[in-house]
Amino acid sequence: MAAGPADQDVGAYPGHARVTPTISEVQRVPFPHPPTALRVALLGCGVVGSQVAHLLLEQEKDLTARVGARLELVGVAVRSIDEPRGVELDDALLTEDAAELVTRADIVVEVIGGLEPARTLQLSAIEHGASVVTANKALLATHGPEIYAAADAAGVDLYFEAAVAGAIPLVRPVRESLAGDRILRILGIVNGTTNYILDAMTTQDLDFDEALRTAQELGYAEADPTADVEGHDAAAKAAILASLAFHTRVTLADVSVEGIRGIDADDVRWAAQTGHVVKLLAIAERVESNGREAISVRVHPALVPAGHPLASVHGAFNAVFVETAAAGPLMFYGQGAGGRPTASAILGDVVSAARHRVHGGKAPSESFYAQLPLLPAAAIRTHYQLRMDVADRPGVLAQVAGAFAERGISIETVRQAPEPVDGVAELLVATHAADEGALAGTLEAISSLSGVLAVTSVLRIEAS
Amino acid sequence: MAAGPADQDVGAYPGHARVTPTISEVQRVPFPHPPTALRVALLGCGVVGSQVAHLLLEQEKDLTARVGARLELVGVAVRSIDEPRGVELDDALLTEDAAELVTRADIVVEVIGGLEPARTLQLSAIEHGASVVTANKALLATHGPEIYAAADAAGVDLYFEAAVAGAIPLVRPVRESLAGDRILRILGIVNGTTNYILDAMTTQDLDFDEALRTAQELGYAEADPTADVEGHDAAAKAAILASLAFHTRVTLADVSVEGIRGIDADDVRWAAQTGHVVKLLAIAERVESNGREAISVRVHPALVPAGHPLASVHGAFNAVFVETAAAGPLMFYGQGAGGRPTASAILGDVVSAARHRVHGGKAPSESFYAQLPLLPAAAIRTHYQLRMDVADRPGVLAQVAGAFAERGISIETVRQAPEPVDGVAELLVATHAADEGALAGTLEAISSLSGVLAVTSVLRIEAS
Repeated sequence: MAAGPADQDVGAYPGHARVTPTISEVQRVPFPHPPTALRVALLGCGVVGSQVAHLLLEQEKDLTARVGARLELVGVAVRSIDEPRGVELDDALLTEDAAELVTRADIVVEVIGGLEPARTLQLSAIEHGASVVTANKALLATHGPEIYAAADAAGVDLYFEAAVAGAIPLVRPVRESLAGDRILRILGIVNGTTNYILDAMTTQDLDFDEALRTAQELGYAEADPTADVEGHDAAAKAAILASLAFHTRVTLADVSVEGIRGIDADDVRWAAQTGHVVKLLAIAERVESNGREAISVRVHPALVPAGHPLASVHGAFNAVFVETAAAGPLMFYGQGAGGRPTASAILGDVVSAARHRVHGGKAPSESFYAQLPLLPAAAIRTHYQLRMDVADRPGVLAQVAGAFAERGISIETVRQAPEPVDGVAELLVATHAADEGALAGTLEAISSLSGVLAVTSVLRIEAS
Repeated sequence: MAAGPADQDVGAYPGHARVTPTISEVQRVPFPHPPTALRVALLGCGVVGSQVAHLLLEQEKDLTARVGARLELVGVAVRSIDEPRGVELDDALLTEDAAELVTRADIVVEVIGGLEPARTLQLSAIEHGASVVTANKALLATHGPEIYAAADAAGVDLYFEAAVAGAIPLVRPVRESLAGDRILRILGIVNGTTNYILDAMTTQDLDFDEALRTAQELGYAEADPTADVEGHDAAAKAAILASLAFHTRVTLADVSVEGIRGIDADDVRWAAQTGHVVKLLAIAERVESNGREAISVRVHPALVPAGHPLASVHGAFNAVFVETAAAGPLMFYGQGAGGRPTASAILGDVVSAARHRVHGGKAPSESFYAQLPLLPAAAIRTHYQLRMDVADRPGVLAQVAGAFAERGISIETVRQAPEPVDGVAELLVATHAADEGALAGTLEAISSLSGVLAVTSVLRIEAS
């Protein structure tokens, strides 16, 4: 791998980060003298950032061989220089002035998280000609299109492998390996906390609160677990994946979300009896609606058949199942969180961005050329399983079946729990594919039937 | 995505494919006028090639959007123009002169397979300045280093995602996503035929011959199944993966190989009883040997714990489990063969190579900078399970245990089949980690014990 003359070091390459070339300029005279070193700035030095710094230093030799130039950590922006941190760093590297740091780097790694100041810092880094590598799913799910466009206009790279499913190589395969294929559907277990909770409920027979407490004790859930349990974290990842898979602008606000707080021990037990497990799925799919192509992006708990590869994803692991037109089904499995796994994904992106500085080229840009319409929630079609308490007397099943038939929903199976208690029988109805809207109407009708005491659970069946 | 002026078409860009620039020239003036079209030549139009042609034509609009230039199929080399083929092509595209075709393309897709003429054609394409995309595992496992070096010297891309595990994005993640990490071990189910056979033996209780016959009837095994059943196909993939993962020159000749012909119904039954399944694994691992780092690359049947993600890979599917220092365990799952899946992987590579022609940049080059020594077969350390027929009398177990102890091999468990038949008991011994060499010595000693009638099976235990 040819490297430039030794004097073309960072110091001798000062103008590089200050120009904001247009794409055509980049193509014309991109790298007159390949640099022998690239300046990496790190924004944030918490659980992930400290591991990024650690790997950058530990793997220095290998990274140089893979990039063709040395990666030099030129600064680490932290909230307070005096705070303790998980990696030993030269004091001279630490700064509280992130805004200044991004102006003197070739590659900026942003692991602060949240919307601001992350957004302003990323945009400033891009303006100053740096490539950006980030793990910030909330930011990309909210302001992704603005940042993609800024990077594209400036001719710099924006990489974000770590923003979806942590360590699992997923963004690169979706953007690059499948670039000649057509993604039909993505079903992802993309939140480790909720998978840990649901898996513990399934395999250890815990109820929701016990499983959540265990997850918190083991560090898989935060003290305030809202973002995970309510599905918001998964929804951000769904928005990012859908944008990439369907070349369509999808933001967090476009994703319909339902968390797992409503899942109880009975749901999990009944799931097992019907050959399913309950998983929180992030779903992005291409559908036909009135003869037009559209997409549906949503997060909700779902019954997954026990034989499906997603069903055997245990503990806090993540896995993303991708169905494509030509490759068929694919699955990507690994750790979705944690300092070192996330840092691994970030370093892979840093190497790609760095190689472009040395050898020319650029990351795929997100152009949203397809811009498919989003299916309204009421038009989503899937299979459902309803559980209800009914009066144990003849004629009730006929009432219930009639309510489904009236709205054109076809029933696939009906099961009744073996022994009625105090005259109350438990009834389980699984439907063929039906609209969310038609189901809502049916639910209302069923709830008002004289023989139905309560609808205790409604779950979607996916991946079948 | 800015495309150049309309007159810079293939026709107006004739010199492009004829220069053989050095890397530094590529860096200096790579793409003065980004092309609006790129010439794609296809070598081979069988099961895979016809699907490549089909996808190129079917996805033309999407591909143009992703590449930033049109991909124009300029020729398809076939053995005989008169043969029927699986895709409708303009007759003018067909040629029997592959050697001529490679001189007039920007990207050459080689799906002829085998060593020659594929090797000569790829080298000629590279010499003429074309990037090469191939699915040819046999060629890469044998002459990979020669072809990698030629591509590197010519400054063109060599992509081969389809050569390992078919449709599964694996080569790109290993080369790029994990470029900032350290791969410790790869355990792959990379041959669909043998996985189908072993899975059918496990789940349908078939013996080897029945399972092979079924695989042949369903098209999962060829009439002559040798290359699959004896492990040669998996070994080629192991060699390619090991080269990438460890930056070390590994060829087919370096891989120790054992196929699945020796696996019988008893092996599969006993595996189930001890909580395992039998899988044919391609293994590439980084090991310490006498304080030095070395690698081991091998293919053999192995007992995999039933709870391991690889254990639930059924039918003809492939899956590759990758253990890394920072990301931890990862698994990639999908179809390992078939025309359309393989074509999907090839198209992804074509898009990457094409984007480099438009936007600059190049594929990672395989530099083998680490060049780790290969561990000799006798020094491989793993766990073993031995099954033997012994005389049903006191003292035999002590004899057997003594033979292990003498060679320093520690026994983990001993099981005896419930009922001796005609004075013969079946004994199952699982060991702690031991050298292949020490085990061979132990086997010899055990076989000569008076109480041991026969050692009926020796299997390695992996992924534990």
